Amino acid sequence: LKHTVKARLTTDGYAEGILRGDRIILGQAITLIESNLSGDRLLASDLIEKIIGYTGNSIRIGITGVPGVGKSTFIEAFGKHITSFGKKVAVLTVDPSSKLSKGSILGDKTRMETLAKNPMVFIRPSAAGNKLGGVAAGTRDAMLLCEAAGYEVIIIETVGVGQSETTVKSMVDFFLLLMLAGAGDELQGIKKGIMEMADAIAITKADGHNLEQAYKAQTEYQHALRLSSVSKSGWEPIVLLSSAITDLGMEKIWNAILEFRNKTEDSGYFSSNRKDQDVTCLHEYFNMLLNSDHERFTNLQQAVKRMEDKVTGKNISPRAAAQKLLEDYHRAIRESTD
Amino acid sequence: LKHTVKARLTTDGYAEGILRGDRIILGQAITLIESNLSGDRLLASDLIEKIIGYTGNSIRIGITGVPGVGKSTFIEAFGKHITSFGKKVAVLTVDPSSKLSKGSILGDKTRMETLAKNPMVFIRPSAAGNKLGGVAAGTRDAMLLCEAAGYEVIIIETVGVGQSETTVKSMVDFFLLLMLAGAGDELQGIKKGIMEMADAIAITKADGHNLEQAYKAQTEYQHALRLSSVSKSGWEPIVLLSSAITDLGMEKIWNAILEFRNKTEDSGYFSSNRKDQDVTCLHEYFNMLLNSDHERFTNLQQAVKRMEDKVTGKNISPRAAAQKLLEDYHRAIRESTD
Repeated sequence: LKHTVKARLTTDGYAEGILRGDRIILGQAITLIESNLSGDRLLASDLIEKIIGYTGNSIRIGITGVPGVGKSTFIEAFGKHITSFGKKVAVLTVDPSSKLSKGSILGDKTRMETLAKNPMVFIRPSAAGNKLGGVAAGTRDAMLLCEAAGYEVIIIETVGVGQSETTVKSMVDFFLLLMLAGAGDELQGIKKGIMEMADAIAITKADGHNLEQAYKAQTEYQHALRLSSVSKSGWEPIVLLSSAITDLGMEKIWNAILEFRNKTEDSGYFSSNRKDQDVTCLHEYFNMLLNSDHERFTNLQQAVKRMEDKVTGKNISPRAAAQKLLEDYHRAIRESTD
Repeated sequence: LKHTVKARLTTDGYAEGILRGDRIILGQAITLIESNLSGDRLLASDLIEKIIGYTGNSIRIGITGVPGVGKSTFIEAFGKHITSFGKKVAVLTVDPSSKLSKGSILGDKTRMETLAKNPMVFIRPSAAGNKLGGVAAGTRDAMLLCEAAGYEVIIIETVGVGQSETTVKSMVDFFLLLMLAGAGDELQGIKKGIMEMADAIAITKADGHNLEQAYKAQTEYQHALRLSSVSKSGWEPIVLLSSAITDLGMEKIWNAILEFRNKTEDSGYFSSNRKDQDVTCLHEYFNMLLNSDHERFTNLQQAVKRMEDKVTGKNISPRAAAQKLLEDYHRAIRESTD
């Protein structure tokens, strides 16, 4: 049987390749999941069902921080530290603002040059997309595929602007906030509520001349965190110093994550949190499907255009027009067969 | 025919009362619109259709600023100024964080004590609610009712935290940002992008010892605004000083709003912007309806519960579960009669 290089695999083919840890097939499967073609979507769903039983055996770590805090440099050093124990690490990026598609993959790989060459590490930036919902869904499924492929540590990096932190928080076990020791106004640039989400804060670039300032910031943040209410996890957030130059903090941060896992597994929070996340995720997917389902019906799209005209002509209020569109949608479903 | 005091009016009764400017009936109609009872919703839709032809004849002004900037005090002074020309003013508040219901009405009226007693002024805080979408829809409809009741100036106040500014911006003609002349870090507390939405900035409390700082801040803000890109309206945003004690700025701000209206009516922007807002609003209502429509079906709610259990038991992925729920929803619509 002749093998065609460009032939698309069956979902069984993808699943089998992923389960034996084939990085190329893993990459292709993530591309399939990110595809907007309806045929691909069915394949993607099918694939996820085939591997769902093999997922969950990882620690999921979210990492955020404002631009300039040194996320890539940190992840390079941190990823290297983790792989030194023989652990396989996958790095995924959520960046809803990214307009690049294939370019961004190259861009991100260049950003984490050493890590990208490490055979224990799989790096994959998010697909381009403007809708955070879609990007988040893709990242979540990519995470499941990586777990099925045997990656024991999943790092999800977010760009640190807008809503993406909340989205990442909703899919990870441990949330790490990177901060710079600034001059004076330490909290600037950090959206309200982000600090409250953190299980740990790492102060980056804590080396050389910065070291003294970093120690000062550590005391301040630790104080600020003590003032905030206790998290549902029962875990008390910690503040650590880190340096990608001296490797300061890498061991402590990894140990803190392991301690977090041990404690929360014992208390039952680890598993109950994941279940809560899955339920939230189900509702988000369902809402996404509801919001896009009507786009299937050509007639309905024409009705939308007609209603827009009526509304701008003040022949009908937006409220009543929306109600009529809902009735049109019901009719379209009744007349359809699937 | 004996008139029962507590009897609910027909929609014709409401419409007729609103069109002759009856404030009590206007207030009752807004309560009707904010009601979540499905019977009330139908009445509300019906009422809006009856008055839609009488709406639009106002200037719609959004006002925002961080807590403590003096929004109520500003609106008291500004509202008084506008009514001195014989203009009727309605003040609506969007506050999705408010947990109060009837209490908040009293609270807000107390905040604007003098204005509340002015017969030319109608003050109405938003209904309590956690979902910004619902609160926004209610405020938008309340605005239409006020217009039908002859209010020529609609002020929509927002609390200045979170997403509510964007929502208010999407329903007004002119967006006014209130700012304090602070010590040093002028932009603190203002979310990125809010300044770019402003058609004017008013620096509040520009009196007594604050006056010098206020002048300095005016120069700084004006400079910052010049650096930002030109708005679609063609209007160049201005920065003014204001004081509720000395009435400084009230005339200038009102004149700027009138100039804005003249210029944008001439350029066609005023009307095209409102049409764009109506179309956006239609889509938002439609999405709201789509997201809540499935809640009508008891069977479907039971299916949701079952799917949640399957998902947490890892018997199915959230993605596939959502797809199955969509199919259940389709089936429920096919089997229903409306």
